[in-house]
Amino acid sequence: MPDIAATGIGAPDAPIYVYTRSNQARFLRELIAFVRIPSVSAQPQHAGDVRKCAVWLAEHLRRIGMQGVAVEPTPRHPIVYAEWRRAPGRPTVLIYGHYDVQPADPLAEWRTPPFEPVVRGENLYGRGASDDKGQLFAHVKALEAYLHANRALPVNVVCLFEGEEEIGSPNLASFLARNRRFFAADVAVLSDTRFLAPGQPAITYALRGSLALELELRGQRQDVHSGSFGGALHNPAQALCEIVAQLHDTNGRIAIPGFYDRIRRLSMEERASLTSSGPSDKQILRDAQAEHRWGEHGYTLYERTTIRPALTVNGITSGYQGPGGKAIIPARATAKISFRLVPDQEPSEIEQLFRTHIARNTPPTMRAMIRAHLRAKPAVINVRHPAIHAATVAYRQGFGVAALFLRSGGSIPVVNTFQEILGIPTVLMGFALPDDRMHAPNEKFHLPQFYQGITTCIWFLHEVGTDGRISAKRNGDASCRSVRYADDY
Amino acid sequence: MPDIAATGIGAPDAPIYVYTRSNQARFLRELIAFVRIPSVSAQPQHAGDVRKCAVWLAEHLRRIGMQGVAVEPTPRHPIVYAEWRRAPGRPTVLIYGHYDVQPADPLAEWRTPPFEPVVRGENLYGRGASDDKGQLFAHVKALEAYLHANRALPVNVVCLFEGEEEIGSPNLASFLARNRRFFAADVAVLSDTRFLAPGQPAITYALRGSLALELELRGQRQDVHSGSFGGALHNPAQALCEIVAQLHDTNGRIAIPGFYDRIRRLSMEERASLTSSGPSDKQILRDAQAEHRWGEHGYTLYERTTIRPALTVNGITSGYQGPGGKAIIPARATAKISFRLVPDQEPSEIEQLFRTHIARNTPPTMRAMIRAHLRAKPAVINVRHPAIHAATVAYRQGFGVAALFLRSGGSIPVVNTFQEILGIPTVLMGFALPDDRMHAPNEKFHLPQFYQGITTCIWFLHEVGTDGRISAKRNGDASCRSVRYADDY
Repeated sequence: MPDIAATGIGAPDAPIYVYTRSNQARFLRELIAFVRIPSVSAQPQHAGDVRKCAVWLAEHLRRIGMQGVAVEPTPRHPIVYAEWRRAPGRPTVLIYGHYDVQPADPLAEWRTPPFEPVVRGENLYGRGASDDKGQLFAHVKALEAYLHANRALPVNVVCLFEGEEEIGSPNLASFLARNRRFFAADVAVLSDTRFLAPGQPAITYALRGSLALELELRGQRQDVHSGSFGGALHNPAQALCEIVAQLHDTNGRIAIPGFYDRIRRLSMEERASLTSSGPSDKQILRDAQAEHRWGEHGYTLYERTTIRPALTVNGITSGYQGPGGKAIIPARATAKISFRLVPDQEPSEIEQLFRTHIARNTPPTMRAMIRAHLRAKPAVINVRHPAIHAATVAYRQGFGVAALFLRSGGSIPVVNTFQEILGIPTVLMGFALPDDRMHAPNEKFHLPQFYQGITTCIWFLHEVGTDGRISAKRNGDASCRSVRYADDY
Repeated sequence: MPDIAATGIGAPDAPIYVYTRSNQARFLRELIAFVRIPSVSAQPQHAGDVRKCAVWLAEHLRRIGMQGVAVEPTPRHPIVYAEWRRAPGRPTVLIYGHYDVQPADPLAEWRTPPFEPVVRGENLYGRGASDDKGQLFAHVKALEAYLHANRALPVNVVCLFEGEEEIGSPNLASFLARNRRFFAADVAVLSDTRFLAPGQPAITYALRGSLALELELRGQRQDVHSGSFGGALHNPAQALCEIVAQLHDTNGRIAIPGFYDRIRRLSMEERASLTSSGPSDKQILRDAQAEHRWGEHGYTLYERTTIRPALTVNGITSGYQGPGGKAIIPARATAKISFRLVPDQEPSEIEQLFRTHIARNTPPTMRAMIRAHLRAKPAVINVRHPAIHAATVAYRQGFGVAALFLRSGGSIPVVNTFQEILGIPTVLMGFALPDDRMHAPNEKFHLPQFYQGITTCIWFLHEVGTDGRISAKRNGDASCRSVRYADDY
């Protein structure tokens, strides 16, 4: 077997870098075309755009030389599949990313339209520029560079690019379970996380779980005149406020009985280590563009956003939404409420505690309904896995700096899905910066992060390909579990 | 002076009734055309429709024989003016109505589109059918019937049809003050109130005042990812809930210090009389299509909605409003809050109490902003005024039943405006039914109320014209105040 791919990436003038450098302008143009497609998975009116984006990405993968490219349907948005399996004896890397994006509203707060990407200074602005199109595209461009400059990859690769990540991947697990054999791999890699700060790469090794719910209260059958009836009926908007106001106590703790029962306590030593490696309160407030800290007493902001759970009202709606006033008592009120969970909280158990709590606290004047949108377990990744080592080497080559290990407050449900269904760990090797405004107006991606990210992805594949400790049982061996590295939170 | 107009309305086969009966179908077609124009004054996108509606109404008034017809501009929506002044020595009646309508949302709850009026059974469905186009139009058709069948009106008439009633009449008072001489009259009549029940007409003699505000809370500069920052920042949606939840105490009373201080107490006797004449709790719940009563302890629902003030959240908005979820901490949250006030509460004083209360209760993590949309004083009309007697006679002729005297929970700011600027009382002679769903989806107007309302309007003008107690000083005497009947709450 010729080992073309694993060689020739050490020297700065190796053909692969000549290729990436000389094609940088085109890579940017392609990324702009990718971001321009409004693939908002949550909004039904964008379903056609999500599909268009999948087709665009599939065609792109075909053009760079990937094989078996397919747009696989699911009950909602398709999965883009691609593979390259010409490195027998080498490990298989599953590259995961998502081509769907968050809704763009509030639109009025964007300096330029979210789906008309523009470069200002060193940044590309647009919805999805950072989350996750730009980061996903760094992997695609690394594959292209290998396939064009070296004519081969240093490992076997399976690409799985999802169109439902921002709505909680409702169809991913069943799709993977049905098509397990196509996704047999030794390790998954995913770039959808952040640096600690500009110039300081970070490998995320712990994620909070998530439980997203919708609570609706209904009062009288329909909106009625607030002049005629104001004072005689309980108002669902007011009743919802009364319930939401009681979800936290005065110490910033979540006031749902039993909510904290299963949380593993960290030792003083673990907490001290966290504090020394993580961002300061000041840094977190700066990243959030906020002036005031808030939350559970007795913890730093880094702890509050990583090792402690949270309850957030993501949206609330009731009654008249237009300009001026409207004299009504609304008939209903809705709050979108999401939890972030930590080991060993179980989303389904927390949902039950919430349901019980709401049932107990809903006044007799109201009917309450609860819908669940998303349930994802918290995850912790073993930092001693050799693929994590490969990522640290790759970051050093791409950015010239050793990566730190970070906990993230966010949730990436796919990490659990890969562990549970494919039996493999996931390396979270992100390129976003803390001020990239993921999920917010004026989202951007720092272009040097994109270009250095491509180099990092090149090195990651190289390191996995040459690290003998990473098993290569993929060709024919279905017992993925045998290469599992246990989580050791 | 020939007295044609004051004669010939006593017999069922008088020409005026032959005219109204034989033109009923056309009257309905015209009302449908009127309701079809989406004259939503609160929504800027309908500004053109509001103007179109004013022009339609003005042309209609010209066609039926009214004089001096004009569409008078104001800073926002125009006023439609018309007059007929050929009854020297007779009193002048100011007919007021409003051709603007409430916003139609939530659209999904309409059985048929709000601006495609349809007749189902004996009802005309459409936004504004009852409030106030149908009721206003009963007066217009009464004028038409006199002018066509009798060739004259029994009184002098000035019509003032407003396009800003549903946004609090922001330009009416200054317009009237500037054009006082055109509106000199002895009494105003307005049909924008309800029967007690089908078959039971009611003259509204007391109205609550209104104060509509918008409270906005702002936290961090913009929406941020709730995974990254959930637990570390105070959420404006949650902070708003915390503030709104504390606006009432557990006895259903408004918890703003000083709020109740100026309220006049009614005697036990007055309250007993109210209870005997007003609707029962059961009736009010049925009208609201509600199952549960709520509110200030110690008062009936009729009292809670008429002689006691109320605070209603008309709308609340924060964060993500679309389908599914969105993982953000919103940057801001807004509540539209309105008060209903009773004598002697002053809207501007209550606004100041609210501002002080919010300033004291806003946590240091938030900035609060308050905007006022509308301030209207409570009003009480002297039921011994002879024009009120004219209305009772008119109702008996139109509906065959004696009218009751009712308090209303709503606000009609123009009643105070007419008293203060023109020095005249207003007769609230409404034709709506309690289940007409004013301000709500599927608003309707009961067509027999329309037709019998026309007869009632005919008789009202006749009675005012023949009651010698109603002064007729309009022609040349500017001292309106001399005919003032004091409010005697």
